[in-house]
Amino acid sequence: MSRLILHLTTLCIAFAMAGTGAYAQIATDVAGRSPWGSHDEIGTLNMMTDQSRLDILQQVHSGKVYDLSVDLFVGMPTCCAEAFGDPAYQIWKTHEPTRQEGGALVSHSSDTILMNTHTGTHIDSLNHFGLHGRIWNGISASEALGDRGWTRSGADKIPPIVARGVLVDLAAFKGVQHLPASYAITPADLEGALARQGSELRPGDVVLIRTGLMTVWPDKSQYQLFNQSGLSLEAAQWLVERQQVMLLGADNFGLESFPSTNAENFAPVHTYLLAEKGVPFMEVMWLEDLAKDKVYEFLFVAAPLKLRGATGSPMRPLAIPIAARG
Amino acid sequence: MSRLILHLTTLCIAFAMAGTGAYAQIATDVAGRSPWGSHDEIGTLNMMTDQSRLDILQQVHSGKVYDLSVDLFVGMPTCCAEAFGDPAYQIWKTHEPTRQEGGALVSHSSDTILMNTHTGTHIDSLNHFGLHGRIWNGISASEALGDRGWTRSGADKIPPIVARGVLVDLAAFKGVQHLPASYAITPADLEGALARQGSELRPGDVVLIRTGLMTVWPDKSQYQLFNQSGLSLEAAQWLVERQQVMLLGADNFGLESFPSTNAENFAPVHTYLLAEKGVPFMEVMWLEDLAKDKVYEFLFVAAPLKLRGATGSPMRPLAIPIAARG
Amino acid sequence: MSRLILHLTTLCIAFAMAGTGAYAQIATDVAGRSPWGSHDEIGTLNMMTDQSRLDILQQVHSGKVYDLSVDLFVGMPTCCAEAFGDPAYQIWKTHEPTRQEGGALVSHSSDTILMNTHTGTHIDSLNHFGLHGRIWNGISASEALGDRGWTRSGADKIPPIVARGVLVDLAAFKGVQHLPASYAITPADLEGALARQGSELRPGDVVLIRTGLMTVWPDKSQYQLFNQSGLSLEAAQWLVERQQVMLLGADNFGLESFPSTNAENFAPVHTYLLAEKGVPFMEVMWLEDLAKDKVYEFLFVAAPLKLRGATGSPMRPLAIPIAARG
Amino acid sequence: MSRLILHLTTLCIAFAMAGTGAYAQIATDVAGRSPWGSHDEIGTLNMMTDQSRLDILQQVHSGKVYDLSVDLFVGMPTCCAEAFGDPAYQIWKTHEPTRQEGGALVSHSSDTILMNTHTGTHIDSLNHFGLHGRIWNGISASEALGDRGWTRSGADKIPPIVARGVLVDLAAFKGVQHLPASYAITPADLEGALARQGSELRPGDVVLIRTGLMTVWPDKSQYQLFNQSGLSLEAAQWLVERQQVMLLGADNFGLESFPSTNAENFAPVHTYLLAEKGVPFMEVMWLEDLAKDKVYEFLFVAAPLKLRGATGSPMRPLAIPIAARG
Repeated sequence: MSRLILHLTTLCIAFAMAGTGAYAQIATDVAGRSPWGSHDEIGTLNMMTDQSRLDILQQVHSGKVYDLSVDLFVGMPTCCAEAFGDPAYQIWKTHEPTRQEGGALVSHSSDTILMNTHTGTHIDSLNHFGLHGRIWNGISASEALGDRGWTRSGADKIPPIVARGVLVDLAAFKGVQHLPASYAITPADLEGALARQGSELRPGDVVLIRTGLMTVWPDKSQYQLFNQSGLSLEAAQWLVERQQVMLLGADNFGLESFPSTNAENFAPVHTYLLAEKGVPFMEVMWLEDLAKDKVYEFLFVAAPLKLRGATGSPMRPLAIPIAARG
Repeated sequence: MSRLILHLTTLCIAFAMAGTGAYAQIATDVAGRSPWGSHDEIGTLNMMTDQSRLDILQQVHSGKVYDLSVDLFVGMPTCCAEAFGDPAYQIWKTHEPTRQEGGALVSHSSDTILMNTHTGTHIDSLNHFGLHGRIWNGISASEALGDRGWTRSGADKIPPIVARGVLVDLAAFKGVQHLPASYAITPADLEGALARQGSELRPGDVVLIRTGLMTVWPDKSQYQLFNQSGLSLEAAQWLVERQQVMLLGADNFGLESFPSTNAENFAPVHTYLLAEKGVPFMEVMWLEDLAKDKVYEFLFVAAPLKLRGATGSPMRPLAIPIAARG
Repeated sequence: MSRLILHLTTLCIAFAMAGTGAYAQIATDVAGRSPWGSHDEIGTLNMMTDQSRLDILQQVHSGKVYDLSVDLFVGMPTCCAEAFGDPAYQIWKTHEPTRQEGGALVSHSSDTILMNTHTGTHIDSLNHFGLHGRIWNGISASEALGDRGWTRSGADKIPPIVARGVLVDLAAFKGVQHLPASYAITPADLEGALARQGSELRPGDVVLIRTGLMTVWPDKSQYQLFNQSGLSLEAAQWLVERQQVMLLGADNFGLESFPSTNAENFAPVHTYLLAEKGVPFMEVMWLEDLAKDKVYEFLFVAAPLKLRGATGSPMRPLAIPIAARG
Repeated sequence: MSRLILHLTTLCIAFAMAGTGAYAQIATDVAGRSPWGSHDEIGTLNMMTDQSRLDILQQVHSGKVYDLSVDLFVGMPTCCAEAFGDPAYQIWKTHEPTRQEGGALVSHSSDTILMNTHTGTHIDSLNHFGLHGRIWNGISASEALGDRGWTRSGADKIPPIVARGVLVDLAAFKGVQHLPASYAITPADLEGALARQGSELRPGDVVLIRTGLMTVWPDKSQYQLFNQSGLSLEAAQWLVERQQVMLLGADNFGLESFPSTNAENFAPVHTYLLAEKGVPFMEVMWLEDLAKDKVYEFLFVAAPLKLRGATGSPMRPLAIPIAARG
């Protein structure tokens, strides 16, 4: 594990030497205080209201449901097993139909799963990354970290998400199957991709970034791990500060481009979004069907499992097309 | 484990001697063949269409979202740990923010979960129970059971569920906090409860049965396990054959009343629904908020994790009120 | 979990009010510094030498081997699952002989286990309990606790144990099947039991305490948990400071009598032995065969799994009778 | 997983075309019947007697104990995770000393492990491999395979092993750091290595094969997996039928040379030893210290965990030098 971290850190340092210096100007490197108060644990998800939900629900004009998640299976690629030594996905049988239990007629099957909370399509809770030991809203480990995890900002606190969703298809904009290794998406890329689609972002949106990497899923040798294409810090900032998105998502392992160009931070977009700005995000999303059908705007519905305290949760988000609003 | 099965079986026998004999007239005790074809793995969920989904989506008249799931936490009641020796819910930390990995600024937390697939609010896949060794559509273990589970009718095959939902509040109908131990809900109870509410069932509905047991959750000593109140086989038959429901759910551990009155089958409603009729169902649902607000009809949205082959999956179903249809 | 801790603490307080006050005179309540140096991680196990091992090996006069461990199986009693919310023992199949993998002839079976490190017959490492946050040799969590456990005094550091062993049969001395609930063994009990047997203790011995509780194993309702009979702090002190034992063991869940009479310490013998004196010990030992055959002195051979950093390890200790030394 | 099996099978076929045809002459490809009776579950371990054990114990002339096992740690190489999709070794904390539980003084740490039973230094039970669906003594899955594993010939049945051990240092004989990839040790190699050492084998011995691979442990890129050096079937036959060994062991992942030259059997030495001849064996053994000190004959002491039904068990075998017998 530590070797891999070392690997990442070494890469960080190498890149930092050629870096633009832009980083320090964006991120404050301090866990943010919530504008929704000292008790807030969900950050920008506070942007949802009954009215915002009803508004988008009433724009639905199709009964076709897009499934934005991947299957979970033994042997599937998992970021955290390969990069950090976390357990890979497992499922096993605990009861089999071939044993006679509970009466001659009955054939009972059951099973158990084991998985890192960041396996398959999932959401990152705000407590997943902190800065200088503090997570969103300035909470420290001594205040809120227990034997089994955080008591603040866990997956159990994340409300059901019902909001306007927008797909931003970067692969289509660039005319590639998927973005090249370590490509860092810029604000100009986002603007270009949105223009190509004729889509616009609105405050409170769920914005889904398509790198195209799902076209090689689940081939571990091709689905980028240590050299992943994804958001630059500038693009994340543009989405959050300029566009006021509520929630982000992507079809890659970790939303942002890797390796980091900041030697002191191997995941600067993670810390910027989760710890500084209170913006959760989703990873390993299946965006191929939306892209193929050119469904760029939709009702987005998702709800993670309420795993108490967890730094993330698997989930199965859905998209349902909406009518263009006049 | 075997002692508990023995316990259940003994109870079955004791009850069977005082039984009504009605059982044999209802259930055929043979795994059913799907009217949707030999390849079908999802049974009544085939009732959904783009039109049925659009129809219910367009009836939404509120942006209030009801969360129908419970938290998952260490020490929570789990049917399968206590009755069958399955693992109880666990979560543990695999990375802590207090260790310096990946750069001086970053505080990385991560965790892993382990759970039986029937833990907390969840859906039972059609492969969870069979009859005489065969699951829905007549599939045997030799055809489709592998080292890690079934290759047919697993949770990964269950489509996103977007349908009309109806709460049937039995506890309110009976005027009790929750139904008494081992109470078996009858078709007349269902009719009475629906009449009290002014609700009607329609083909393709998701029907949620409220016993009131969530009022004692998560108190293991009160949340009925071996003596659970729930559906009788007659009530299940009435819902499926008379009302043509698509999906069932309840707020108890196992939908049906326990112990069984059939000495050869400790879970006759399970086998009737899953193996004979192809009707999946949900358990351990949080129905308190709907009941309190008297929200009896709603848009129901849920999607289990696509755990390949699994006999069930945790999930977080949602309900959104609909307008009365003229 | 926290409810159980509360339960233990409440019991502690209740008992403390009727306490003897003896406690404070024995235990210093500060993690001890090792006489074997600041790098020591194994405490009294340093007493072993090539000469001490050869000496006892040469006293063997029988080829009969006594197995001092219990089976590990799903549903077995485990202290830490029932008292502390830790996972109970699990084993599951990952490959089955009925699937054709790797060629037509081969039938391959494999399995996986999951267990708290204090399950079944096991040894407690010195890092299992500390005082005021410091373990043996004054090591604090900030110095040596990582994401996955301690880097000091783990089970991987425990050397193979080859030493003189002595069984002290308290149940036989008291003339009971097993000691009564919460009975606290005194120094006088130990002296009496040794006299009855005609055994004597020598510095560096492995001393195994028989309460007789294995006669009710694995009946969870009888194998004492929260009200366990076992060593008093005085008896532990007598063994360590007067008799200079090297290693302790017992046939109960937790060596010492529960509940504690010290409101500030629910396991004072654990902290005294592990943190203050550097004496590891074994629990859930099978001592019935030795007792039945009246084998009171023997070659003791045991070696835990080298689980890096672990607070304990399952193991299977052996005893081989020695000749009386003239 | 299936891809890896396919990979192995393809290799098998490739090799088989250049094969010697010797295979069919040795192995009968049918599970053997035990000469110790139809109830036997331990095969050649029946060769041990009180007299055989006492005999070897009395030859001990040193108190130096050699530890023949490796550490278990997150990230360690595990055959079954990399080749078969089994879970890799995991350990995690379930209690931390920094939380105040059970009184102000106490610092309680605890942890849980998860591992395939063939992880680190371990023994293979006779039920690990069968032929045509039958394990040792002709037992079929329908007779003795349950939900959680076999009820016959599991690790719980393996008695403590106290016997004469012999190291056969093939790497030293060949004058290499370790045997080359896929090298298959021949009977002549064994004779040559024994002659070089001046060692002789006796019926009932524990024979440990040193390939030298532990010199590259735990480097996954060098510790041979799919192309492992190890015993040929002829060498295994020579050891079992000519030398009447009781138990085998090696310092590699899987005792025998891989890939197999038999297209219908990816592990012919496994099936020959376990299923046909009833000879258990150990893998991933640490033999470096014995080799360095030229300790070729010794008291061998080992006892697996009694994991009920398990196909193997981690263990920590020990060796203690014996005097040359006149």
